[in-house]
Amino acid sequence: MGKSLCLSLCFLVLFHGCICIAQQQQERQQNKCRISRLSAQEPSNRIQSEAGVTEIYDHNNQQLQCAGVAVVRYIIKPRGLLLPSYLNAPQLMYFIQGRGLQGIMISGCPETFQSFQESQQGVQQVGEQEEQQGGHQFSGDQHQKIREVQEGDVFVVSTGVGHFIYNNGNNRLILVSVIDISNDANQLDFQPRRFYLAGSPQNEFQQQRSPQESSGSNVFIGFNAERLAEAFNVDAQLIRKLQGQNDSRGNIVRVEGGLQAVFPQRGQEEQGSEQQEDRLHAHGNGFEEIICSLRLKQNIGEPRRADVYTPLGGRIGGITSFDLPILKGIVKLSARRAFLYKGAMLLPHYDMNAHSIIYAIRGSAKFQIVQNQGRTVFNDVVTAGRVIVVPQNFALMMKAGDSGFEFVAIKTDENGMINTLAGDLSLIRAMPVKAIASAYQISEEQAKELKFNRMEASIAPGRFRSESA
Amino acid sequence: MGKSLCLSLCFLVLFHGCICIAQQQQERQQNKCRISRLSAQEPSNRIQSEAGVTEIYDHNNQQLQCAGVAVVRYIIKPRGLLLPSYLNAPQLMYFIQGRGLQGIMISGCPETFQSFQESQQGVQQVGEQEEQQGGHQFSGDQHQKIREVQEGDVFVVSTGVGHFIYNNGNNRLILVSVIDISNDANQLDFQPRRFYLAGSPQNEFQQQRSPQESSGSNVFIGFNAERLAEAFNVDAQLIRKLQGQNDSRGNIVRVEGGLQAVFPQRGQEEQGSEQQEDRLHAHGNGFEEIICSLRLKQNIGEPRRADVYTPLGGRIGGITSFDLPILKGIVKLSARRAFLYKGAMLLPHYDMNAHSIIYAIRGSAKFQIVQNQGRTVFNDVVTAGRVIVVPQNFALMMKAGDSGFEFVAIKTDENGMINTLAGDLSLIRAMPVKAIASAYQISEEQAKELKFNRMEASIAPGRFRSESA
Amino acid sequence: MGKSLCLSLCFLVLFHGCICIAQQQQERQQNKCRISRLSAQEPSNRIQSEAGVTEIYDHNNQQLQCAGVAVVRYIIKPRGLLLPSYLNAPQLMYFIQGRGLQGIMISGCPETFQSFQESQQGVQQVGEQEEQQGGHQFSGDQHQKIREVQEGDVFVVSTGVGHFIYNNGNNRLILVSVIDISNDANQLDFQPRRFYLAGSPQNEFQQQRSPQESSGSNVFIGFNAERLAEAFNVDAQLIRKLQGQNDSRGNIVRVEGGLQAVFPQRGQEEQGSEQQEDRLHAHGNGFEEIICSLRLKQNIGEPRRADVYTPLGGRIGGITSFDLPILKGIVKLSARRAFLYKGAMLLPHYDMNAHSIIYAIRGSAKFQIVQNQGRTVFNDVVTAGRVIVVPQNFALMMKAGDSGFEFVAIKTDENGMINTLAGDLSLIRAMPVKAIASAYQISEEQAKELKFNRMEASIAPGRFRSESA
Repeated sequence: MGKSLCLSLCFLVLFHGCICIAQQQQERQQNKCRISRLSAQEPSNRIQSEAGVTEIYDHNNQQLQCAGVAVVRYIIKPRGLLLPSYLNAPQLMYFIQGRGLQGIMISGCPETFQSFQESQQGVQQVGEQEEQQGGHQFSGDQHQKIREVQEGDVFVVSTGVGHFIYNNGNNRLILVSVIDISNDANQLDFQPRRFYLAGSPQNEFQQQRSPQESSGSNVFIGFNAERLAEAFNVDAQLIRKLQGQNDSRGNIVRVEGGLQAVFPQRGQEEQGSEQQEDRLHAHGNGFEEIICSLRLKQNIGEPRRADVYTPLGGRIGGITSFDLPILKGIVKLSARRAFLYKGAMLLPHYDMNAHSIIYAIRGSAKFQIVQNQGRTVFNDVVTAGRVIVVPQNFALMMKAGDSGFEFVAIKTDENGMINTLAGDLSLIRAMPVKAIASAYQISEEQAKELKFNRMEASIAPGRFRSESA
Repeated sequence: MGKSLCLSLCFLVLFHGCICIAQQQQERQQNKCRISRLSAQEPSNRIQSEAGVTEIYDHNNQQLQCAGVAVVRYIIKPRGLLLPSYLNAPQLMYFIQGRGLQGIMISGCPETFQSFQESQQGVQQVGEQEEQQGGHQFSGDQHQKIREVQEGDVFVVSTGVGHFIYNNGNNRLILVSVIDISNDANQLDFQPRRFYLAGSPQNEFQQQRSPQESSGSNVFIGFNAERLAEAFNVDAQLIRKLQGQNDSRGNIVRVEGGLQAVFPQRGQEEQGSEQQEDRLHAHGNGFEEIICSLRLKQNIGEPRRADVYTPLGGRIGGITSFDLPILKGIVKLSARRAFLYKGAMLLPHYDMNAHSIIYAIRGSAKFQIVQNQGRTVFNDVVTAGRVIVVPQNFALMMKAGDSGFEFVAIKTDENGMINTLAGDLSLIRAMPVKAIASAYQISEEQAKELKFNRMEASIAPGRFRSESA
Repeated sequence: MGKSLCLSLCFLVLFHGCICIAQQQQERQQNKCRISRLSAQEPSNRIQSEAGVTEIYDHNNQQLQCAGVAVVRYIIKPRGLLLPSYLNAPQLMYFIQGRGLQGIMISGCPETFQSFQESQQGVQQVGEQEEQQGGHQFSGDQHQKIREVQEGDVFVVSTGVGHFIYNNGNNRLILVSVIDISNDANQLDFQPRRFYLAGSPQNEFQQQRSPQESSGSNVFIGFNAERLAEAFNVDAQLIRKLQGQNDSRGNIVRVEGGLQAVFPQRGQEEQGSEQQEDRLHAHGNGFEEIICSLRLKQNIGEPRRADVYTPLGGRIGGITSFDLPILKGIVKLSARRAFLYKGAMLLPHYDMNAHSIIYAIRGSAKFQIVQNQGRTVFNDVVTAGRVIVVPQNFALMMKAGDSGFEFVAIKTDENGMINTLAGDLSLIRAMPVKAIASAYQISEEQAKELKFNRMEASIAPGRFRSESA
């Protein structure tokens, strides 16, 4: 495949010698950061399903390869269900809009959501006549914990963990998912690989080459139907459904009547149990792999959670492995979310230990990104819906447009750290005045200006700047 | 070298365009998991030695490259000694048959096995006349701890640790060794490299290119003999022996009269000291690198150690970093061993976080393995002695043949985890009935069949299935 | 470069279409250890600056690629300042000669060195007239902690951390820096990338291709000057200086009048606070990323710190993550420093878990290095100033010349471990006499000679050998 592509490329430049990197280029996305020009990407592919749309940012793009990630955006209509699947890499989702339910499926985790405890609520459609089947003592249903998610939530899913998402709100549920394919936990090649467990959806990460491939499938189709019937102890007719034969609904399907699963009221889950889990697990109990009860989400959108706040400039909040223990060693990603007011400036800075995958949520900003030799690799406006990678150590400065700018930055380290180059916490502030004067060939007076004139830490207010400085 | 090889390859396919990936292909075994077809491998090479046979599974095979491992099987005759050596990667050995002694050699670890304590036993052949030599106060011998091993034992050896194996039983000692060459601890290239410390054995991992290379050698041959004589403070005649000159016995040599080393009786070592060590080290004492006293073995063959047992189906046992602390962070492998009765089925499942290198011990089974797009990459019978790699996240189902099936699966993670797709602990069980019904376009009644009809957790009994379900 | 090489290769096979992998070969320095011949390298490039010289060992050399490191030597004249910069990888510096100040700059770390506490000393040049500017309550200056360094010190700097070095002694300050570009903390490509924060220095790691590139630059040059003026809240004139325009001093500049920064007297810092910090952090407090107060240096040159000492042979000292907690998980390097007397021999040994990058400090020694098949890959004299890589597991023996031999070995593991092949702690000592006799086909008497004749642990004395053995 890489080879044929390479060959045809070669024939095009026939007689000139030919430079072709073939499949290599695709495989080692890591360490591909010889970036001379960045761009703010839009989705390169869009898959329409019965109850929603899947938009894929081309993961073969050089900058996503550099960061070693794939990015997908899902738009799920009300009562839409993103079919259950698992991935060969951990992912961090950010919920941009709406509300929904996130189901997580891990073998051996307890089915703690049981409907017989609250039978008057939720599981009305489930007939009572099957209760004896298989010798179960309860009526209704039981399944693993399902989490509510909403705008502003970060949600993480580890490698190989089954999951599905359901829109139980009245508006579209929109989320962006960053899949860390260069994570150690992915031992396959540097391709995002989604294993669907139901339906027959087209694989969003595969380029369609043959009609047969584009039709898609779930993993059960690969097994012998008779064997599966034996494994599940059901008849062959039902196995055909399990295998998703003749299913053309795509990866987001409509749930007729709505998914009335067993789950507690919001609030109960949020404040009570989750906070307690957090306390239990924060100091590590040596059973990190028993991830059944690890907290998987955190809201980073709420103003009160901001870590940095400049009254006329904006605010920044974030999440690291200290906030969400599963990020530590297992998912190894972190995130920051910022809201810049009109004309506000995010002061020059760089990521010390991670790439930043920036998703523009609302508004726009003018970005400037500089590499190690001082060359500008990006100097343009980034608008809502675009994705741009800021490689590790590259210096970044941005200025919000007239409608402000909101973004989320996913970092490829469990505790992404930033060094600022101007302002109250900057590296310039860390140096003695005399060293600054010598380094820049300026007077000590000028050195003090460089060091002290900008008082804000990360965000400089826009037009009202003169008031605060 | 890669270049010239590439060029000549190019000339061979003259006029046709030329595909040459040179040495690259070989080097990056990791991330080579674009597997479209698997196969159950037999050893590709067999080296006969004085007292045994070394059988090598071709590590350049695509599936072993995908898993990043090399696999070797040793068959050691009674009184045979696998010469001391060390490797550039950690290895996990599984003892298939027989009993033996495993010597581990680490600089600075204490020589705790001393013969003057039990001089009436074991070291009769050692002459007493040398006791003054070098000013030693003891008679006889002293050396580092030697461990007894037997059928069903897992034994791990870290990167760079010297080791030898001796067959002190009456039958052939057979073991299979999985060498994790893609482990972080290997900083050389992705080739298994064995450094022999004695003899002149042919290197089992090198393709013979010149007659001179096939003759083999130990590391001492590369040093100047005179210098070595100075280093060891012995005469040059003895150095020639150290260098293994004119030794044609191969890597497994016969010990005339048997190796009567100093070692305690079985039982003492097993129950007493080892269990205590385990307790001491399980919670980490901050000196992980002082591996002198870390426990290195664990029997996973005994029925009473099974983690899963289905009366008419079979049993599965295993070992992770929680059982054997050296696996945690140092060796980073784990293992499972299963015994399926006649016709029993290992329910569909996948490895969440690791590749599985399966070695078939006894009997046979029909395997089906499916990749992410639902394509069957393997659908065949695996018989005793074969090795097959199940890549991470690929779905696997197997059904034992008429004589049952026994296998050991080595996982490329210190705590290999499995998700099952059918049965009591499966992902299907984790979902609400309504979600299953919607995902598979079936009635809720059918959804309950899928969810509850198979009661067993991992193994479904064979022909007696109807009784238990 | 990879491309042009590829092109010419392509012309050779002209008309055939050509597939060429080009820059790949360069990129994956890791796992490039198919070494058939080593060499003791001298610097391949030398950059003269206003107040010093930068000497670069070619990091595209096969053996440095194998080790995944870059090596640079800095010679800084008195009152010379190595301009502030940060790197995409952690580095371990060894100070060969002289004394200086090391400034470390991390956003958010406190500016704990404040001149108003000791205003009579150090900051005389700083005018008092700016004290109201920006509303600061102190007169003079404040900046982050600055560390004193001197001959024999190891100093580590993490990825992305800003740092500068100043020579405050009367002699040249010479240091060698090993940059671990294959460290996990580097998520860019396998190239050392230095981001200068001041001046306009030529990038020491880039091959000059165009005159424009060779002139060099700092990161600020890539930002729009007007925006920077807004960010720093200073005028555009000053920004031109910040951007290093028309600066031709190179990367080491002269500080007129000397850098009289705020810093405490030596001794205070050394014994008091640092030891305490060490105790606080050694057992891990869960905030490893708050590296503000982590200890960064350790002297390994002093005789009293030796770990191994043979009266007539020499001494060896070292540093691991147990000595310097920042090495653990963050920098992942360790070091050993040895002093061999005239004619003394470092007994045959190998690194179990790391490559060794050996820098020869003084004198000379005859090295012999052997790979896994027993082939000698190096057999020559190494003299002061040279760098040689000993790949993981390769066996090494050396004998000091007439003026003795001093070297420092940087190991690519946080706790580099050695196995010796001869002497008191050797692998031979770990084996039973009978096993030695069988392995080498010698008598048990001879086996005892091999095992016990060399009593020293690591170093064998030179001509006086007969006295001690």
